[in-house]
Amino acid sequence: MTQKLASHSEDFSAWYNEIVQKADLADYSPVRGCMVIKPYGYELWEAVKHGLDRRFKETGHVNAYFPLLIPLSFLEKESEHVEGFSPQLAVVTHGGGKELEEPLVVRPTSETIIGHMYAQWVQSYRDLPVLINQWANVVRWELRTRLFLRTMEFLWQEGHTVHATYEEAEEETLRILGLYKDFAEDDAAIPVVSGRKSESEKFPGALTSYSIEAMMGDKRALQAGTSHNLGQNFAKAFEVTFLDENNETQYCWGTSWGVSTRMVGAIIMVHGDEQGLRMPPVVAPIQVVVVPIYRGDDEKSLVLASVAQLTAELKDAGVRVHLDQREEYTPGWKFNDWEMRGVPLRIEVGPREVAEGKLTCARRDAPRGKGKSAVLRTEVTKEVGRLLAEIQQSLYDQALAFRDSNVKEPSDYEELKEIVQDGWAYTWWCGGTQCEQKIQEETTATSRCIPLEQEGGEGPCIYCGERSTERVYFARAY
Amino acid sequence: MTQKLASHSEDFSAWYNEIVQKADLADYSPVRGCMVIKPYGYELWEAVKHGLDRRFKETGHVNAYFPLLIPLSFLEKESEHVEGFSPQLAVVTHGGGKELEEPLVVRPTSETIIGHMYAQWVQSYRDLPVLINQWANVVRWELRTRLFLRTMEFLWQEGHTVHATYEEAEEETLRILGLYKDFAEDDAAIPVVSGRKSESEKFPGALTSYSIEAMMGDKRALQAGTSHNLGQNFAKAFEVTFLDENNETQYCWGTSWGVSTRMVGAIIMVHGDEQGLRMPPVVAPIQVVVVPIYRGDDEKSLVLASVAQLTAELKDAGVRVHLDQREEYTPGWKFNDWEMRGVPLRIEVGPREVAEGKLTCARRDAPRGKGKSAVLRTEVTKEVGRLLAEIQQSLYDQALAFRDSNVKEPSDYEELKEIVQDGWAYTWWCGGTQCEQKIQEETTATSRCIPLEQEGGEGPCIYCGERSTERVYFARAY
Repeated sequence: MTQKLASHSEDFSAWYNEIVQKADLADYSPVRGCMVIKPYGYELWEAVKHGLDRRFKETGHVNAYFPLLIPLSFLEKESEHVEGFSPQLAVVTHGGGKELEEPLVVRPTSETIIGHMYAQWVQSYRDLPVLINQWANVVRWELRTRLFLRTMEFLWQEGHTVHATYEEAEEETLRILGLYKDFAEDDAAIPVVSGRKSESEKFPGALTSYSIEAMMGDKRALQAGTSHNLGQNFAKAFEVTFLDENNETQYCWGTSWGVSTRMVGAIIMVHGDEQGLRMPPVVAPIQVVVVPIYRGDDEKSLVLASVAQLTAELKDAGVRVHLDQREEYTPGWKFNDWEMRGVPLRIEVGPREVAEGKLTCARRDAPRGKGKSAVLRTEVTKEVGRLLAEIQQSLYDQALAFRDSNVKEPSDYEELKEIVQDGWAYTWWCGGTQCEQKIQEETTATSRCIPLEQEGGEGPCIYCGERSTERVYFARAY
Repeated sequence: MTQKLASHSEDFSAWYNEIVQKADLADYSPVRGCMVIKPYGYELWEAVKHGLDRRFKETGHVNAYFPLLIPLSFLEKESEHVEGFSPQLAVVTHGGGKELEEPLVVRPTSETIIGHMYAQWVQSYRDLPVLINQWANVVRWELRTRLFLRTMEFLWQEGHTVHATYEEAEEETLRILGLYKDFAEDDAAIPVVSGRKSESEKFPGALTSYSIEAMMGDKRALQAGTSHNLGQNFAKAFEVTFLDENNETQYCWGTSWGVSTRMVGAIIMVHGDEQGLRMPPVVAPIQVVVVPIYRGDDEKSLVLASVAQLTAELKDAGVRVHLDQREEYTPGWKFNDWEMRGVPLRIEVGPREVAEGKLTCARRDAPRGKGKSAVLRTEVTKEVGRLLAEIQQSLYDQALAFRDSNVKEPSDYEELKEIVQDGWAYTWWCGGTQCEQKIQEETTATSRCIPLEQEGGEGPCIYCGERSTERVYFARAY
């Protein structure tokens, strides 16, 4: 476990694949394209769930659960939707030993079956809005997969709401985008850009799609969450109507939005370094690891008694603390191991620490060998809280500085080509699908999003030179 | 919504089907046999999850996630297992537009794929025990389905552990059975019998199966949780081995255990009455509903200001409280509605209550029209806490008294036949599969479990008269 990792700076892709397995976050499964989420990775996902679920509930959303299996005919009711998802479907043709009359698809997303139910549940304007979220697994047949980033089956939340007006649906779509940004920045310490997707990048069946985009450690972009204004497309396909206050029948306006186990991949790729993972304290499965150091039985009993009390004290204070009492490894080996696993703070306790009433704290966010400090034993709870908050902020600041130094504004198309080889380009774009496709073909970079916050003004499209009023990010992406 | 429910005492089955839909717990789905869990039902399931998950984590278990789709060949590696589950499989034959080389089954349970992974993860005795739980959906093709009780897809937790010895596996199996009993009794207010399943009722592939059994409102039994000692069966099928302290290769000893959305059905069926649901406060999505009562604008502003403050105060105290401000319904209509939905405590606030500094509290566990009391406004937080604890205890006591009065000891087989028409029979049984089958054929009652706590002694088998040393429950079951 302590052999050297692939280099983060030289071969990021190999580094990622290795660290996910070495740190026991996930494993490959015998079913091609599916993954096994191991306990350490699942705890990270639970922290993501917790952070999002809390925000959904605070804004009036409730959870529900809809069936995994969907009649194939349902998908066919919305033409863009079925076109988008058909190539990715897993199809159940047999059940209970018999061939089915109509094949069932394993849900790739649930707009259709939820639309079908909403048509029955919504009658009057009094029933609106419906603000439902679902935590579920979905399956999309993928040929090129990668642990957490793109897997055939993945876990996610999918919110599905219906409203009386376009304005309310648009407001909801943006409210959720705001929650996603909030979670990414405050909990996962990942700075993100919120913006609108281009026509060609939007969700099949949506009116408008929005996303949050984050820069990974190799400067590629990753779409970390999406929120869609579905307009009346699914309402019309599934007859989701209501009687308004004037007793007239209207179609509902819908939204859908999701964050998946990809977010775990983002946390790994944004914060990791040559030594391995670096977990933001708010979502870290283990925030503090305590490593006892001793030689001989006398020191051992002294130190172990001390760390047991320390661990209990931190636990009582609500800190997620782990005491590493393994006897088969040296302290040095453990330091490396927990660094690789990204635990934000390590506390070393030897006989000297016990005698002096001090503890040695080592921060994972600092360069190796730095970031050590002595903390008074009597102050430990307060100091650990302070250090964890500092580490959270420092990881965010590092990621922000990294992103800012790798976003550039090209003065012409040749410069854009260079920039997207190793960063993001922020540039004027006419909004035309043709220019977007040409750029993608010639650079492999895609339009990521048209940020909500624009400086205004106008400029020439980086590709065709037409006058344009919005700027966009182009980047190579996961 | 206020039309009369089917009668709880006269047609329990119709009552159940109606209340599940009327109280917005669940709905039928367009896919035969699948259900939609609506927000109110899902919140109840979240409370079940929370109560169990906490107990698992306190006893050293961790969560993980394994793939939904399992190669068909995996199931075939354990002969009893495949025989048991084959008739119930949903099979994916096509993915990404192509026919698959090997069909994949939608997991009916995960022993096989988890066994496959454990074979790779476990090398040495130092890796043991592995104590993993998974929260997941599973699919079993069922022809006769019923919301929550028996659905094609259901949600559950499935624990899968491996150990170095038989003794440890058996200890774990019984530890979990204890947690299940603890949850059922303390959180769900459902008295249960813990016991061993007969040979014919055990899990396909297990050495020994245990269950908790509860009596529903119609005196039928429901298996509310199971815990299995798998012996080395799956370890042998999947080569899950470890090097012991003497460096010798050994097969691991396994367990698996699960509680599903059936538990929600049990909560409905144990506590419900003629008026509808009765939710135990510990798991109730809404513990307290506040209903304002007023005529005219003056009273309205007075009362609404008062209930807003009351609701905020209870919320701050950690009570799950809901304020029913709907204007289109009368207070009387609301009383019926919340009774039907089973909210444990209702607080009525009118101008008189505001003037006198008192509140009217109505308990759902008391007979209709009784259970009202006046509570001082200044004491409300304390009093609500006390009342909720009393209601929790009272629901448990009522269920226990009901069960105790409907378990009878037959003196001969004729008497057993009568007892199981309307209750449970507790009786000596030789343990023979033949006697068990005859009883089932002649009475439709099945052996539920051989309770762990036995009075000792011996007696004649109720069917064949052979000397036997254990007693068993026979009952008609869900």
